[in-house]
Amino acid sequence: MIRVGVVGYGYWGPNLVRNFSEAPNTTVTAVSDMRADRLAMVERRYPGIRTTTRVEELLANPAVDAVAIATPVSTHFDLGMQALRAGKHVLLEKPMTTTSAESLALIEEAERRNLVLMVDHTFVYTGAVRKIRDLLASGRLGDPYYYDSARVNLGLFQHDVDVIWDLAVHDLSIMDYVLNAHPSAITATGMSHVAGKPENIAYLTAFFENNLIAHINVNWLSPVKVRRTLIGGSKQMIVYDDMEPSEKVKVYDKGITISNGPESVYRMLIGYRTGDMYAPQLDMSEALRVEAQHFAECIELGGQPLTDGYAGLRVVRMLEAATQSMKKQGALIELAGEKRRVCAA
Amino acid sequence: MIRVGVVGYGYWGPNLVRNFSEAPNTTVTAVSDMRADRLAMVERRYPGIRTTTRVEELLANPAVDAVAIATPVSTHFDLGMQALRAGKHVLLEKPMTTTSAESLALIEEAERRNLVLMVDHTFVYTGAVRKIRDLLASGRLGDPYYYDSARVNLGLFQHDVDVIWDLAVHDLSIMDYVLNAHPSAITATGMSHVAGKPENIAYLTAFFENNLIAHINVNWLSPVKVRRTLIGGSKQMIVYDDMEPSEKVKVYDKGITISNGPESVYRMLIGYRTGDMYAPQLDMSEALRVEAQHFAECIELGGQPLTDGYAGLRVVRMLEAATQSMKKQGALIELAGEKRRVCAA
Amino acid sequence: MIRVGVVGYGYWGPNLVRNFSEAPNTTVTAVSDMRADRLAMVERRYPGIRTTTRVEELLANPAVDAVAIATPVSTHFDLGMQALRAGKHVLLEKPMTTTSAESLALIEEAERRNLVLMVDHTFVYTGAVRKIRDLLASGRLGDPYYYDSARVNLGLFQHDVDVIWDLAVHDLSIMDYVLNAHPSAITATGMSHVAGKPENIAYLTAFFENNLIAHINVNWLSPVKVRRTLIGGSKQMIVYDDMEPSEKVKVYDKGITISNGPESVYRMLIGYRTGDMYAPQLDMSEALRVEAQHFAECIELGGQPLTDGYAGLRVVRMLEAATQSMKKQGALIELAGEKRRVCAA
Amino acid sequence: MIRVGVVGYGYWGPNLVRNFSEAPNTTVTAVSDMRADRLAMVERRYPGIRTTTRVEELLANPAVDAVAIATPVSTHFDLGMQALRAGKHVLLEKPMTTTSAESLALIEEAERRNLVLMVDHTFVYTGAVRKIRDLLASGRLGDPYYYDSARVNLGLFQHDVDVIWDLAVHDLSIMDYVLNAHPSAITATGMSHVAGKPENIAYLTAFFENNLIAHINVNWLSPVKVRRTLIGGSKQMIVYDDMEPSEKVKVYDKGITISNGPESVYRMLIGYRTGDMYAPQLDMSEALRVEAQHFAECIELGGQPLTDGYAGLRVVRMLEAATQSMKKQGALIELAGEKRRVCAA
Repeated sequence: MIRVGVVGYGYWGPNLVRNFSEAPNTTVTAVSDMRADRLAMVERRYPGIRTTTRVEELLANPAVDAVAIATPVSTHFDLGMQALRAGKHVLLEKPMTTTSAESLALIEEAERRNLVLMVDHTFVYTGAVRKIRDLLASGRLGDPYYYDSARVNLGLFQHDVDVIWDLAVHDLSIMDYVLNAHPSAITATGMSHVAGKPENIAYLTAFFENNLIAHINVNWLSPVKVRRTLIGGSKQMIVYDDMEPSEKVKVYDKGITISNGPESVYRMLIGYRTGDMYAPQLDMSEALRVEAQHFAECIELGGQPLTDGYAGLRVVRMLEAATQSMKKQGALIELAGEKRRVCAA
Repeated sequence: MIRVGVVGYGYWGPNLVRNFSEAPNTTVTAVSDMRADRLAMVERRYPGIRTTTRVEELLANPAVDAVAIATPVSTHFDLGMQALRAGKHVLLEKPMTTTSAESLALIEEAERRNLVLMVDHTFVYTGAVRKIRDLLASGRLGDPYYYDSARVNLGLFQHDVDVIWDLAVHDLSIMDYVLNAHPSAITATGMSHVAGKPENIAYLTAFFENNLIAHINVNWLSPVKVRRTLIGGSKQMIVYDDMEPSEKVKVYDKGITISNGPESVYRMLIGYRTGDMYAPQLDMSEALRVEAQHFAECIELGGQPLTDGYAGLRVVRMLEAATQSMKKQGALIELAGEKRRVCAA
Repeated sequence: MIRVGVVGYGYWGPNLVRNFSEAPNTTVTAVSDMRADRLAMVERRYPGIRTTTRVEELLANPAVDAVAIATPVSTHFDLGMQALRAGKHVLLEKPMTTTSAESLALIEEAERRNLVLMVDHTFVYTGAVRKIRDLLASGRLGDPYYYDSARVNLGLFQHDVDVIWDLAVHDLSIMDYVLNAHPSAITATGMSHVAGKPENIAYLTAFFENNLIAHINVNWLSPVKVRRTLIGGSKQMIVYDDMEPSEKVKVYDKGITISNGPESVYRMLIGYRTGDMYAPQLDMSEALRVEAQHFAECIELGGQPLTDGYAGLRVVRMLEAATQSMKKQGALIELAGEKRRVCAA
Repeated sequence: MIRVGVVGYGYWGPNLVRNFSEAPNTTVTAVSDMRADRLAMVERRYPGIRTTTRVEELLANPAVDAVAIATPVSTHFDLGMQALRAGKHVLLEKPMTTTSAESLALIEEAERRNLVLMVDHTFVYTGAVRKIRDLLASGRLGDPYYYDSARVNLGLFQHDVDVIWDLAVHDLSIMDYVLNAHPSAITATGMSHVAGKPENIAYLTAFFENNLIAHINVNWLSPVKVRRTLIGGSKQMIVYDDMEPSEKVKVYDKGITISNGPESVYRMLIGYRTGDMYAPQLDMSEALRVEAQHFAECIELGGQPLTDGYAGLRVVRMLEAATQSMKKQGALIELAGEKRRVCAA
């Protein structure tokens, strides 16, 4: 049984507390938040949990094996580093940190201390995304051609991060997992419609090897909520619509077939193939529950999490490149290759 | 009664013949196509129309006042110029020509000869697009913030033009009409998935004055057909979904309100506004019928068409810039300002 | 090559002329309509077709092998009988006649003369309905439990027939084909909202053997158009939505499983089963084209049409029972058993 | 502050406890349930609430002003009567009781003791249903023509009640509220597909004065979830789709216009009117919260609840009639007139 301390009880903290309380191999022993009224909510709902406004107290608590950090991104590095130095395993909210240098420093600290460092890329633990990963990994889709996502709604304007760091981070973490590849270059465009505020609308293109291209459309000012990803392969194609109450993932047996024409070697024929569509049954378990259990298993069994520090780092590198490109109206930013290590489980 | 000759009886030609036959102020007197079997179809359906495989014959026909040209884009300039020189008014399929220099030359020739030169930007004549134009022109939407369109499906691969020239041309012509503004710069990315073929997937961003941004997503390899445009303004927002059988245009009374906080001049407050949505009734007339009639009226009354040569030229300039940017993986291409002249009608 | 004469060139007649003109084994030689302006339309489009305002002339024409009758239902019996007596094969619009006695008389006349008598239950020839029939006939759905259809829109008020004879006739003909069973009793309710006019809204329940139940909801006064049928079986279930541009038929691997509880013979356990959904690819051929060809084949090869006079009779019997029940606010009307004979093809 | 005791902590009880805990003018002081494990859940989450397996203890508790009863319907009458006799105000889950005689007895007991008796017709307190009531009450829809609801999904089979008592009860309570009228007769059909179990599919028609007709389609065996109600009036029409995440209520300016033809008094002309559609903004407050507060206000101020015992009784009378009709395959069951009294608030 892994004893978890949760740092930050704002928007996401209550979900962490609930899931770490209910997962079979974890329990929550402590919560810290600087706001007394938030702690009062914890006390009312969970009388057994120790609360404090001082994170140092939580980190010094010997009844805390692991720490889940759900505070603004600008504090992730400091709090994560403190937690690792206190000998705690760490789960960090996404984005992992504000710079890739900080992510790397956390990874090194965790490796030095042999502690688990995981990033909360929640969507990776949904039944839908795991099914998509299976479909791609099995080769059923053929060669991947494109990944195209729209994630727009009338969203909360963030003061500290732009819409890419707030919304595209979800797509980048999903993409990182299902494509199992890292882009060689990124270009992004965007705009702010409130003077002095970060961009509230943005478009990001990522280039991969083998003509794979990815695109992400994010927008805090859309009148309708859209959560739709198209993934095209040479054999089959996927529509993943997270707004659907059921049948979130649809697989289409559609595509093109290319052959040389009989009459001439110069003439290439492109044919169209359309067949059945099917929507596989998905595991509907709550993603955060699955993730909490996976975090505990990695601690207990010594494995590497599916969304480890390297996954967090890769996503931060893409975010950095995107923001850098957006400032230059779409200038191409090249990315170095990344090491990939994935939990065997 | 304007007597029309139609050049090219392939995919779009039959629609031109049908609509010019049925519009109240036009009639079709001649059709030319290089393929005898296509002309046989004309003869069977319209015994009164004169057919020929030689376009020169059609252009020399004194019973032809105006010519509608529906051939591959690479032939538009030559055929258009021949027609103008033969003293015919001209309706050209979109895109107008393969280069902006050619478009400009046609405009000058038409002006010199005092002939009507119109480009078939069909969507401009739909009830939906005209309603959107009215909503924007009336100021009801407030300041325009963004124009964001997705136009994807399992489409026919073109051999001579990329997906931007095939599909984004629709969005660019709609945008040109409803925004009544020309972008200052364009950036585009895309990919080809068939060796030696033009790009089959592309993403285009256009920057305008006053923080207006436009984005177009086009794809010949999508498993599902999407035709959806979001248009955001400071007061209201529009969703235009052309796949809806009815209620194609929805107007949302949603947005943000910005005010300075009472406690501090440094702190800006962003509030959210949500209100009713409504779907205005649209004129459901066939766009091409409306357009055929407008072409004839411009000829009879001497007016400038809504989608005149300058509109065609502006769209070609955007297409040129987009393709140029796409070849350089998103490099920003600046556009010079454009004159705008619109038919008074 | 079967030479067809079409009687009636109103709403549906043009579709018959077009399809019988274009099907590979039929041609249209004559059209009759009492209105000269309608015949003028035929002459303009199809110069080779002989037109007449006198149906007798068409029926006497030796260049007519078969007659397709698309006139108001009240005239079907007289015209159909005249045609059979003139030795013509007959295709009748649905509903076949205004009474089952008339349908029976036509069947007997056709059998006596060894002529093909077919009823235009168009939906039976769509790819969607044929696929549903296959799914049911193959046993994949298990025992059929229910057939539940909604067919509503802002429709044309008919003066001579109620909404059941106008809209439910489609569902009854589909049901008759896919269920391959005849109801033992029918009950219907409905209402007229225009004084002196037939019912514009109606609900029909049909009872079959083995606990199969069918229900049809028809309405001329709905603000939205709905064409949706749910078909439940013990193993799988179907949603057939004719408004979908693609994936009109979806098959759900969902249902209940019933077992006796282990602890007690008195306790029955009901479990729920949910699995994949799939949408089979459908033949998208125009139904009327398929039907025209089938009519000609039955004439040439001597077969019995899929939608023969008996199918027409069964549907009229259900319509009669429904209207009778509706007049008595849902009184149960029992139906006698019906002979079923189906074309081998 | 009204102190509430909740009887029954199964499916719905937790929602009652949560809402009565959080509403501004109520608090929960006691919960009873026969199952110790359910009480353990209460104790863990709400340490301050007194729990007991004996309902008598809860009813004898002087710290309980009012009782909310969320037990199987067969126990409603006994528990409700005990609570009233103990001097407690009562909120009963729907359906109110298993017979109308029982409902009436509870009403009389409550009136004799001057206690508030309310039935938990939750949908009446949603923003959507209140908006529909406003639209109908304001006369904007004109004369009501029909109310047509589908409420189907793969639902839990009930052992004690049929699908009408389980699902149609929602529609009947909504209908009772928005139409403000009581039907004069009801007919229903249905079927059971599990031997020995109640009907799992049913269709109900209700006849009102002035040609108003209502229809309800309920089904525990549908592969898809549908919650859609069409309401037609002489001037406007409503589509209420509870599955929509937003825009649940759409109002269509569509209908027919009836006039006498100019040429003849004998000929009536029916025209069609189509105009804008709009979706009014809805109050998105949780219905049960609104209801909890309303219950407390009726107790404090002495008012009659919107969904009082008479509303509960009217719904039970319709349920009784429907089940009676269904047993006789749709026989018409006439209903006596009902008194209507509504809370002024």
